[in-house]
Amino acid sequence: MRATLIHAPGDVRLETVPDPSVQRPTDAVVRVVAACVCGSDLWPYRGVRPTAEPHRIGHEFVGVVEEVGAQVTTVKAGDFVIAPFAISDGTCVHCRNGITTSCVRGSAWGGLDAEGVLADGGQGEAVRVPLADGTLVATPEVPDAALVPSLLTLSDVLVTGHHAAVIAGVRPGSVVAVVGDGAVGLCAVLAARRLGAERVVAFSRHADRQALARDFGATDVVAERGDEGVARLQELLGGIGADAVLECVGTKESMAQALDATRPGGRIGYVGVPAGGPELPARQIFGNNLTVAGGVAPVRAYLPELLPEVLDGSLDAGRVFDLELGLDDVAEAYAAMDERRAIKALLRP
Amino acid sequence: MRATLIHAPGDVRLETVPDPSVQRPTDAVVRVVAACVCGSDLWPYRGVRPTAEPHRIGHEFVGVVEEVGAQVTTVKAGDFVIAPFAISDGTCVHCRNGITTSCVRGSAWGGLDAEGVLADGGQGEAVRVPLADGTLVATPEVPDAALVPSLLTLSDVLVTGHHAAVIAGVRPGSVVAVVGDGAVGLCAVLAARRLGAERVVAFSRHADRQALARDFGATDVVAERGDEGVARLQELLGGIGADAVLECVGTKESMAQALDATRPGGRIGYVGVPAGGPELPARQIFGNNLTVAGGVAPVRAYLPELLPEVLDGSLDAGRVFDLELGLDDVAEAYAAMDERRAIKALLRP
Repeated sequence: MRATLIHAPGDVRLETVPDPSVQRPTDAVVRVVAACVCGSDLWPYRGVRPTAEPHRIGHEFVGVVEEVGAQVTTVKAGDFVIAPFAISDGTCVHCRNGITTSCVRGSAWGGLDAEGVLADGGQGEAVRVPLADGTLVATPEVPDAALVPSLLTLSDVLVTGHHAAVIAGVRPGSVVAVVGDGAVGLCAVLAARRLGAERVVAFSRHADRQALARDFGATDVVAERGDEGVARLQELLGGIGADAVLECVGTKESMAQALDATRPGGRIGYVGVPAGGPELPARQIFGNNLTVAGGVAPVRAYLPELLPEVLDGSLDAGRVFDLELGLDDVAEAYAAMDERRAIKALLRP
Repeated sequence: MRATLIHAPGDVRLETVPDPSVQRPTDAVVRVVAACVCGSDLWPYRGVRPTAEPHRIGHEFVGVVEEVGAQVTTVKAGDFVIAPFAISDGTCVHCRNGITTSCVRGSAWGGLDAEGVLADGGQGEAVRVPLADGTLVATPEVPDAALVPSLLTLSDVLVTGHHAAVIAGVRPGSVVAVVGDGAVGLCAVLAARRLGAERVVAFSRHADRQALARDFGATDVVAERGDEGVARLQELLGGIGADAVLECVGTKESMAQALDATRPGGRIGYVGVPAGGPELPARQIFGNNLTVAGGVAPVRAYLPELLPEVLDGSLDAGRVFDLELGLDDVAEAYAAMDERRAIKALLRP
């Protein structure tokens, strides 16, 4: 089959690799229907994170089960499934606590699983899924094609945005600010409104993203960044910061902006993979009584709550995909996102 | 009158200073009944924080109102009052949000108030209290002398320990670890149990403090520190960290221990004034889905909840005072705490 490998910064290639197969009784093989490129895929693409040797890449996909191992009971051949961006067994103490990303047998797409066998990356034609019962979630029936983009956001971005809002304590009536207008930030706007936020201020300088933020429920848009952005936010909010700030980028500057944009006693949820930058300022947090919650979203744990609303069309997060390409064009998908010509690129094998 | 000044590391002195008086219609003058030395007073005493010039010190006291300004309505001459360790107006947006320590007109004992007038330090015979209505809380009647130590803990340590437990999300059934066996740490044990924690592990190497921790409700005591302490804790808890860890010291080492002692998805409440040490590790927090909440306790906001339980004797936090001295011996009070000969010293003017 064909699958994507990253070789070096700026160098992703579609190559021929061995076909996946069931290797453990807990495995499934999934034929990919749609995959996508994540903002965090851009860290190695941009060289912010090193690529020591060529390896599989991609951790967001939906597809149809082709085959399952003898011990798999929750999905079967023909099922349409969502693959969260982390592999988890669903039974360990951390999974039971809802932190599936800390699963004691957990692993990541495109790397070795807990038993030392390659789990294929998501940006390919098919994937061997370890721990299929713990990892995959099947839809009740094969969904309409129009729903596929929104279902694909359940692999990562919609749920990551939702996680930011949850860990930042967004509740009915909250005043929220969202730092980051990528797909996760836009989904965070949607998630904050879904949780009842009364006001959602989106920081964005791009007209197309501003428009989508408003469509997703942003009540205000602030184009300024840094200190100017914080000043503008406080002007909008009567002189203080937001109750909850959702940091959806992961840089030094975005975290500083998020901390400065939070009112005393407020909360920051950060879901942008921290890339460079300093650590969190203990004294600022202490002096202002801030709560800072970080985290790689435990997607699997949230799917039972969010999937029904995607299936009924009320959570239409798939609108973040403004570019759709064949898998052959995976390099262009990366380039378009890197150059901010696209918010998020969907790939069809 | 006589009041305490710090001149330099290791050098605190009782000196004669001007008598306080009502200078603004919102002031009160309080005759101090009992005061004490705080763990955070030891930072300048130890030279961890600089002392540029001699200044008043002490921020925990209870006393009797002697005189009030024309606009003061909630306390009157003769009332027994508790002074939180921060001055606040009780009416600004941050006070209304419960973060009285971020009051827009707030200030600190022993420094200049919002109008540039000295607010006396607490380790003296009397204190001018700015913004008396917002700051002071009177007891319904003059309390029995036996209650004074516990009432004094409402100025800071009991409430700071309570704040740690609250911001770390302690709830019925929680598994809690407390880093720090000073007065705040011991009060955090008491507060965690009061909030329903099922298990409270106290880190302590001192027999007297271990005993008091157990009296306050600790179910387990771990004498080891650092990595060994974390390993011992996980052994006690079936291989994982605590749901909530209360960091009550403020050093680099104590914060690292707190972070390592928290299970994935758990929460850290830190109330030790950060002194030196590195900033908070964004990637560790992110990878383990930790929530880190810091803060200088907004004592005033918690007093209506906690005062009744101190008055009825059920919250006997005054047991943290294991040394009682006259104000003349204030230097010895500091030395005893610095050398860990005393958990906490109470001063009687």
